[in-house]
Amino acid sequence: MTLRFEQIVIDSIDPRALAAWWREALDWQTTYESPADAPTEEIEVEIAPDGETHPSLLFVPVPEAKTLKNRLHFDFVPDDQAVEVDRLLAHGATRADVGQKDVTWVVLADPEGNEFCVLSAR
Amino acid sequence: MTLRFEQIVIDSIDPRALAAWWREALDWQTTYESPADAPTEEIEVEIAPDGETHPSLLFVPVPEAKTLKNRLHFDFVPDDQAVEVDRLLAHGATRADVGQKDVTWVVLADPEGNEFCVLSAR
Repeated sequence: MTLRFEQIVIDSIDPRALAAWWREALDWQTTYESPADAPTEEIEVEIAPDGETHPSLLFVPVPEAKTLKNRLHFDFVPDDQAVEVDRLLAHGATRADVGQKDVTWVVLADPEGNEFCVLSAR
Repeated sequence: MTLRFEQIVIDSIDPRALAAWWREALDWQTTYESPADAPTEEIEVEIAPDGETHPSLLFVPVPEAKTLKNRLHFDFVPDDQAVEVDRLLAHGATRADVGQKDVTWVVLADPEGNEFCVLSAR
């Protein structure tokens, strides 16, 4: 039995814009992008850390916007939590309230509302 | 700037059961599990591939069940698609219809309804 964890697929209203946002947020690389003339419904953009390929993030188009809190979300460990949170907010992230109270992590959302957490440095 | 992709958090009705299901589905290892006497709302179970730690999958409890199609999902590459799909179905996965038509991947759902795809072998 073999199942390689290939990618995490992210439904997106605007895959190119959201992929670019995450690529810059994480300082990752674009590893695949559909040709400029691809039909809107076939656009795919894949990003991955430099030198790594799995799991990548693959942004694909969907017609519907996000409504509920995501059931899956990403956690990131910063080298400096305050610095990274400020950087992400300046980059277009927003603070998100998913019911967390006095916790050690910071909950943010990307431009399409996908929640993610910046954990404490460790 | 440094953000390490630490983990993917999965909201779960039953974190222990769902983590065990995925650990067996992927042949991964449990890398952390709350003590047996942990309060239900504080249960966390983390699984990761053998020898790797990031990103892991972290199952945490939520009171609400899944309703909509997940906005994020996992894709896996099998060595033999038919064999892996059969194995996962026998393990308790179900086939899921998210509007895919005649595609090369198979859409399944875990016991709590989270969609994932088994891609074609490559």
